[in-house]
Amino acid sequence: MPDNRFSELLEEASKLGRVIDHYVMDALSMYPQRLVDASLHLFKAGGKRLRPTITLLAARMLGGVEAEMKAVPLASAVEVAHTFTLIHDDIMDKDTMRRGVPTTHVVYGEDWAILAGDLLHALSYNFIARAVSEGLSEEQAYRALKALSEAAVYVSRGQALDMLFETTWDVTVSDYLNMVRLKTGALIEAASRIGAVAADAKKYEEDALGLYGCFTGIAFQIRDDILGVYGDPKVTGKPVYSDLRRGKKTILVVYAVREAGREELKKLIGPKASEEDLKRAAKIIEESGALDYANKMAKIYASKAKEMLEALGGVADERARRLLLDLADYAIERDR
Amino acid sequence: MPDNRFSELLEEASKLGRVIDHYVMDALSMYPQRLVDASLHLFKAGGKRLRPTITLLAARMLGGVEAEMKAVPLASAVEVAHTFTLIHDDIMDKDTMRRGVPTTHVVYGEDWAILAGDLLHALSYNFIARAVSEGLSEEQAYRALKALSEAAVYVSRGQALDMLFETTWDVTVSDYLNMVRLKTGALIEAASRIGAVAADAKKYEEDALGLYGCFTGIAFQIRDDILGVYGDPKVTGKPVYSDLRRGKKTILVVYAVREAGREELKKLIGPKASEEDLKRAAKIIEESGALDYANKMAKIYASKAKEMLEALGGVADERARRLLLDLADYAIERDR
Repeated sequence: MPDNRFSELLEEASKLGRVIDHYVMDALSMYPQRLVDASLHLFKAGGKRLRPTITLLAARMLGGVEAEMKAVPLASAVEVAHTFTLIHDDIMDKDTMRRGVPTTHVVYGEDWAILAGDLLHALSYNFIARAVSEGLSEEQAYRALKALSEAAVYVSRGQALDMLFETTWDVTVSDYLNMVRLKTGALIEAASRIGAVAADAKKYEEDALGLYGCFTGIAFQIRDDILGVYGDPKVTGKPVYSDLRRGKKTILVVYAVREAGREELKKLIGPKASEEDLKRAAKIIEESGALDYANKMAKIYASKAKEMLEALGGVADERARRLLLDLADYAIERDR
Repeated sequence: MPDNRFSELLEEASKLGRVIDHYVMDALSMYPQRLVDASLHLFKAGGKRLRPTITLLAARMLGGVEAEMKAVPLASAVEVAHTFTLIHDDIMDKDTMRRGVPTTHVVYGEDWAILAGDLLHALSYNFIARAVSEGLSEEQAYRALKALSEAAVYVSRGQALDMLFETTWDVTVSDYLNMVRLKTGALIEAASRIGAVAADAKKYEEDALGLYGCFTGIAFQIRDDILGVYGDPKVTGKPVYSDLRRGKKTILVVYAVREAGREELKKLIGPKASEEDLKRAAKIIEESGALDYANKMAKIYASKAKEMLEALGGVADERARRLLLDLADYAIERDR
């Protein structure tokens, strides 16, 4: 566990996460109970709250505590948008476990899971609108709307590509990187960008934060791919090999087949694969050099992310910058 | 067919609908093909485009042609938001036909239908953000965001109540009206309100337009309930009796059971009902006075809607007001 090195970051994320949880639960208090329960199911099961932590730290880094306060509704918007994508993706990917608990559609049925996702998606924009009565200017709300809505559109495109890739082998590393930039990078980019918006940052600062988020997101997804095959399900909270079973074109699989020529993988993974097949596939992937390659790529993206922050010169809060730098490292070293 | 009386309105809606269709299809042109096809499936199957027509006519009524031009992205936002709710509601309600064609999840599968709905939902906010580069001020974008996001949250709440009501008889006419105000009224209210925003209307004008939309929406839903039992499926494009089969608490059913004491209906409707049962139920509902009551209520709400527009005094475009008045009547006289 690298948690020791990251204890300051994780404590901060947990503290900021409680602020976000309070905001979200408060907003949902008046809704029909079953809808609230379905909407908050994954939320209450855990989660690292990394996205809202990025928003709040970015705001603090560039604008101090005052900006961070204004960013609370925006950070909450980012977290509910993220939760919405998890709930719907779990239905589409037929995933049954996440954060150590059965997924929302398994517990509440698909209808309620669809509706809960839709509510959280709508709430994310509503939180931006509400932020104006809590000190954000209308111009800032517009910038946040732009960032979040572009991200949400990209996430849909990324999810479409992810699903289309399941049934084809015609996927290169560059196709993969484009897909994860959309599916995972875009929302973390928005999280970071919106923090800059709350600090009324200059355009170049917002863009630097956006790139930090985008690169961190890609690194995060590559690590996710690795944990999906080599992680400990008791720690990750997700079953192992489910990506392989779904025929997901993770960076591991794409590299092993396309770059290392391990064509035999095509027969070992997919919905009909046995547990033995999948174990063998995991071994072949490691031997092919794909695991090393993925680790190397994750490191490159985390470094690029950190460069964006380091290039910024003096900032309002240096500790927030340091925590964001740690977060980029944590994205690629985490075990869960 | 009352279409003759409404030919001017319907021609206008069809003309404005083409502008909206162009905007939406253009925005989707760069997306993965299967996602585009699923997203545009219902869109291309037809639809009356009443909601964007309301937005554009409201903008024109209060601000003339210039405001109407600015409202095009906003009206498109309203229509894609509406389409999103149809696609997801059809999954939740297990409806298999709409607009005379199989529903999106029947044609493309649930996964793609969920994703298409999510994309359209995200696009609706993205269209508001984009409107700023097409002449809308940031303050107007914020007002539109507020109206649309509140509506989307209300729609989720309304859909939750609609689903919860399926399994209970503890629903009064007032519960019903609250549910349809959320499920149907809220989005038509937003459509109308956003048109006023594009015209940079005063707060009281925006509120009057909002109430016009809300009342028109409730009237529209009551007519929908009636057409669901007494409409011609060849004209409506939807199978008859599906509300009764789902156990939906329409105004007809709620009145017949709660106000007219026709308890026998409880056994005749629901998922196990035969075609004969449903025919008998339709007859009992009519005899109970529920059909008359529903027609009367629809008329009251259409009248209230029209009063809101008539109270406004002089407006920039009188023909647009007349068409909006016609639209409130059309909502309760339409056959499809």
